[in-house]
Amino acid sequence: MRIALGLQYDGSSYSGWQSQVQRNTVQDVLEDAISAFVGEQAIKDQPIRVITAGRTDAGVHALGQVVHFDTNVQRENWSWVRGINSFLPDSIVVNWSKPVYAEFSARFSAYERTYVYALHAGPCRSPMAATRATYYMLPPDRWFDVDAMREAAQYIIGEHDFSAFRSSECQSKTPIKTIYAIEIISRQPWLYFRIRGNAFLHHMVRNLVGTFLMIGVGKQEAVWMQELLQARDRSKAAPTFAPDGLYLLNIAYPPEFEIPTPYLANSWLPGDILQA
Amino acid sequence: MRIALGLQYDGSSYSGWQSQVQRNTVQDVLEDAISAFVGEQAIKDQPIRVITAGRTDAGVHALGQVVHFDTNVQRENWSWVRGINSFLPDSIVVNWSKPVYAEFSARFSAYERTYVYALHAGPCRSPMAATRATYYMLPPDRWFDVDAMREAAQYIIGEHDFSAFRSSECQSKTPIKTIYAIEIISRQPWLYFRIRGNAFLHHMVRNLVGTFLMIGVGKQEAVWMQELLQARDRSKAAPTFAPDGLYLLNIAYPPEFEIPTPYLANSWLPGDILQA
Repeated sequence: MRIALGLQYDGSSYSGWQSQVQRNTVQDVLEDAISAFVGEQAIKDQPIRVITAGRTDAGVHALGQVVHFDTNVQRENWSWVRGINSFLPDSIVVNWSKPVYAEFSARFSAYERTYVYALHAGPCRSPMAATRATYYMLPPDRWFDVDAMREAAQYIIGEHDFSAFRSSECQSKTPIKTIYAIEIISRQPWLYFRIRGNAFLHHMVRNLVGTFLMIGVGKQEAVWMQELLQARDRSKAAPTFAPDGLYLLNIAYPPEFEIPTPYLANSWLPGDILQA
Repeated sequence: MRIALGLQYDGSSYSGWQSQVQRNTVQDVLEDAISAFVGEQAIKDQPIRVITAGRTDAGVHALGQVVHFDTNVQRENWSWVRGINSFLPDSIVVNWSKPVYAEFSARFSAYERTYVYALHAGPCRSPMAATRATYYMLPPDRWFDVDAMREAAQYIIGEHDFSAFRSSECQSKTPIKTIYAIEIISRQPWLYFRIRGNAFLHHMVRNLVGTFLMIGVGKQEAVWMQELLQARDRSKAAPTFAPDGLYLLNIAYPPEFEIPTPYLANSWLPGDILQA
């Protein structure tokens, strides 16, 4: 039987999603928790291996992550949720569980991902926002040129070769991705980027945010975004921005799988940012 | 010269405000940072000793803490802010600095304190709210009886003997304090208590919140608050609630001291909760 789970985590204390030998990853901790819940006998028959919709990097958070795994163990939906949570630390939580068709893959059935990037900017850091939003130092009474950033955003809507914003470690088969929407929400001292696309290259959101900010502080014109995109050269774009402010918000699946919408009200982010 | 500072901190990694031998307190870390900024020669003449408006407990946060210290070192206001911040970890920040009269005491000039207690309640924990709001397990579709809690709040407005809500370690000279206002803001899955008084006993807010919640979940009637108050017996009230959700929001001083209002926009708490 295949089970899908809806998941949230605070990524700040993990070496990202993907399993590593040190086992300090979300995948390792989640697989250990599910294994502990189903019991030794069940994992002898079928070890727990979790497939995710989005392999988030070290420090990146998830509010609406979706995963699946296969098991012969039968439990009620709510029993899976409570049972796995009882073996998880405070930094990871399962919000829902659901049996799904064997054709469902958390990774390959997903046709759209939404990320939010939260930035806190001003003369002083915010202790309560540390590891939850990226800090950008701005002098008092300075703010970003939001119109210029919105103009720049128009260049990347649609299908493009995003090689300029791709990390050298990216394992994607193609640098061509489609961005459906970018919203830039300015609420001083906060700046939020909401970005929705079919899929994303490694570090793509963080590299785009770095580029937006170079435009937002007037170091570059809006058209720079288009020039970078056309040059397809990673070395020309802005440096990769910190993971602290990055949230995997939502994964969209074809309606026939009946995957629940993510539970977002428990995040600290403002409600209108979270409309998935 | 006497300098006042406005301060914020994430209390989750500290053993509270007050200096201890292990030096893992906000006071120790702040005194070390100020000392490092003014330099060895200056602290030989006059060691840095910081007096605070509110000695917060382990795990309690501050958004509008005020402190003062005496020094012979002369700096511009903004130089104090930047200089001290450069020696502070991400979990503590100085927002403003201001020279004050020698008659000013961050502790004894304060006539009013405002605290916020943030609670997250529902069937699942929230990873992003861990250490920033206290979690209270509620079954799905259950919520607090907010009217009953508001009724209970009316009993504690005004001047009372708060012995029932006082920790055995409390060093206050008197258990008699005045509560000016309590607001209970219900926004499922969040519940906020805003409480304003002339001063608070040790653990008083956390003990009051525990009592409110016993009423909010129907284990006690609203009038229980009055009975506890009159009995003045700590052992009869609810257990002390966790520090995670407690924030020192604002300290009020007589206007002649011209103490700046706290900078609150950088907190994750909703804007209307923060109106000081």
